[in-house]
Amino acid sequence: MVGAPLNKASLPSANGARTTTTLSSDSVLALNTGDPTVFEPFWQKMGDKCDVLIRGSDLMSYYSDKNNVCWFLEPELGDAIKRLHGVVGNALTDKRHIVLGTGSTQLFQALLYALTAPAAPEPESVSVVSSAPYYSVSLTDCDACTFNEDGRPYIEVVNSPNNPDGTHRGAVVNGGKGKVIYDFAYYWPQYTAITSAADHEIMLFTLSKCTGHAGSRIGWALVKDKDIAEKMTDYIAISSIGVSKESQVRAAKVIGVLCDGCENVGLGESENFFEFSRNLMAKRWQKLREALKHSECFTLYKHPREHCLFTGEFTKTLPAFAWLKCKEGIEDCNEFLRGLKIAGRGGKAFGVDPIFARVSMLSREDEFNQFIERLVVATQGISSGH
Amino acid sequence: MVGAPLNKASLPSANGARTTTTLSSDSVLALNTGDPTVFEPFWQKMGDKCDVLIRGSDLMSYYSDKNNVCWFLEPELGDAIKRLHGVVGNALTDKRHIVLGTGSTQLFQALLYALTAPAAPEPESVSVVSSAPYYSVSLTDCDACTFNEDGRPYIEVVNSPNNPDGTHRGAVVNGGKGKVIYDFAYYWPQYTAITSAADHEIMLFTLSKCTGHAGSRIGWALVKDKDIAEKMTDYIAISSIGVSKESQVRAAKVIGVLCDGCENVGLGESENFFEFSRNLMAKRWQKLREALKHSECFTLYKHPREHCLFTGEFTKTLPAFAWLKCKEGIEDCNEFLRGLKIAGRGGKAFGVDPIFARVSMLSREDEFNQFIERLVVATQGISSGH
Repeated sequence: MVGAPLNKASLPSANGARTTTTLSSDSVLALNTGDPTVFEPFWQKMGDKCDVLIRGSDLMSYYSDKNNVCWFLEPELGDAIKRLHGVVGNALTDKRHIVLGTGSTQLFQALLYALTAPAAPEPESVSVVSSAPYYSVSLTDCDACTFNEDGRPYIEVVNSPNNPDGTHRGAVVNGGKGKVIYDFAYYWPQYTAITSAADHEIMLFTLSKCTGHAGSRIGWALVKDKDIAEKMTDYIAISSIGVSKESQVRAAKVIGVLCDGCENVGLGESENFFEFSRNLMAKRWQKLREALKHSECFTLYKHPREHCLFTGEFTKTLPAFAWLKCKEGIEDCNEFLRGLKIAGRGGKAFGVDPIFARVSMLSREDEFNQFIERLVVATQGISSGH
Repeated sequence: MVGAPLNKASLPSANGARTTTTLSSDSVLALNTGDPTVFEPFWQKMGDKCDVLIRGSDLMSYYSDKNNVCWFLEPELGDAIKRLHGVVGNALTDKRHIVLGTGSTQLFQALLYALTAPAAPEPESVSVVSSAPYYSVSLTDCDACTFNEDGRPYIEVVNSPNNPDGTHRGAVVNGGKGKVIYDFAYYWPQYTAITSAADHEIMLFTLSKCTGHAGSRIGWALVKDKDIAEKMTDYIAISSIGVSKESQVRAAKVIGVLCDGCENVGLGESENFFEFSRNLMAKRWQKLREALKHSECFTLYKHPREHCLFTGEFTKTLPAFAWLKCKEGIEDCNEFLRGLKIAGRGGKAFGVDPIFARVSMLSREDEFNQFIERLVVATQGISSGH
């Protein structure tokens, strides 16, 4: 699942059309959501390459392909998704059904339906677990690490790299009656090393965190079992009668241009989205670590370097969120950030202690720079006894 | 709610990209869903007037307008919706919040959430009722006409003109603890007389049945109560983090061109969508009534003429669906249609007797003509004793 807004209170100060800001030192920095506007400059540089023209009579029907399990998936988007995973090497698409959703959020709900829809008239209750800290949309019951499955059915959600802390994850319950949902929202080269092509029964992806096109609300599931794919499709049909066709053709175009840029190595960094975005993330993480080097307030998790099959290099993990831990003397990290006019999301929302808080690293440049500035001031303020 | 597919078994033979068909007399006519492809020719005629160009870096954020209750609604679409209701005169938009949904289907679910979300820790169970025949997505509990509210909370769904039978409807329960959802999916001039500007607390509309752009998945609610609008917005945020921005800008464009055509009376019929589509519907209904004039199989409901404020004339009701009733000797209308290779939807799905069945009047031209042809053959077959 993506790091996204769940209520109006968590709104950032920017709207979709904004490209410049009027941030003052008084503005609250809304870094509590993962709005991925950091990637806008790359797509601006692409000029008209990604232009999509939609005519008045295009895409009017509910249907895209009646021969596909997911009958509302435009074939060109299905093809683009397969190509993308092939180019990046982060997941196998062979012998899998692609189920499209209005973002991966809707697909997660479709999966809960598909995995719990009763075959018998009296369904058992099913626990949904994930190891803490976990990203929650109030659907996760408990911490997978302390879950005693005891022969009961359960669904484990594995988010890797993990939101909020960026760690690599695997399933932890290993019970006989469990189903595992692999949420790979952040398993892309700008955030982490691609260590293997994932080969699980059920895998979730979202355009928002891959290319940064959150406004399109496009997510997809790669699903081996046809029955599960059919039930998910039924859920999305009942819930919203499919997914916007305009978003689909636009996503297909954007993904196509992204793949062209990755494959055409001669074009240089500026045409390779993952190199560009990885460099951006690396610069931000460097600034953040620099700002907190002598901090008496916060520490950051250190991620190991790993060999990335996509870049061919040993690379750092550069998570989409900073997972801040307060040092002794500060009990509530989010409260402390609020004092700096930085809106984050506190540890409790992720099933852990309030000494932790999550802050987005995906904001626009000016917001990110303000964030760093305020951290530096806070650190200096504390060191000099203010 | 719209007349739309709920499962794969109900797929028509066409996909979204098709403009010509290879219908044979053996093909099953999938008229069980309300895919509104009948309106494609109008938008083809509009040429490049509705063209929408989306660039690579457009519409990337989750957010559209942080100052609006519905923060994911693009302001230009909100304005277009207000203009549309002003031009058509079918609903008041003053002092109302517009809540956007991925089709009205999602909005209906958002309303069930908003109207039943407990203020107290122990919520009462709430009945959802509608007078039969009603369009059901398995959410309607019972027939409003026989519902004894007995002081209990309930939600009544009023669909007017009604899917499936095209009749005008009002609330029937009149209980003290009831909330009423007015579903005005078909309250547009091509289907019915616009007799007044509707002025209810909660009204639902959908682009699919207004302009025919079903693939865009755009629906909207006009809601007086801010608390209800906020809860609906929360539901849509949790369910899909908003609504496709691409569909929104495209819908705004299409609605704008539609309004221009209606206001610029000098352009003639071909530029006025509602005149064009009303003429189309009128021709189809004429063909259908002609085909069934001497039928020994089916009868059709007769709708009264009413004065339409939009056209300024007394006009016929021209429903989006034919609601066929079988004559004596045929017990299952849908089964009988199946024998003619016409897929409809039987009365039971709408809470009434199987002697009824619903058949879409919104298919593409060739499918509609085949439908009429098969009805004529069936009628002749029975009259000549075959």
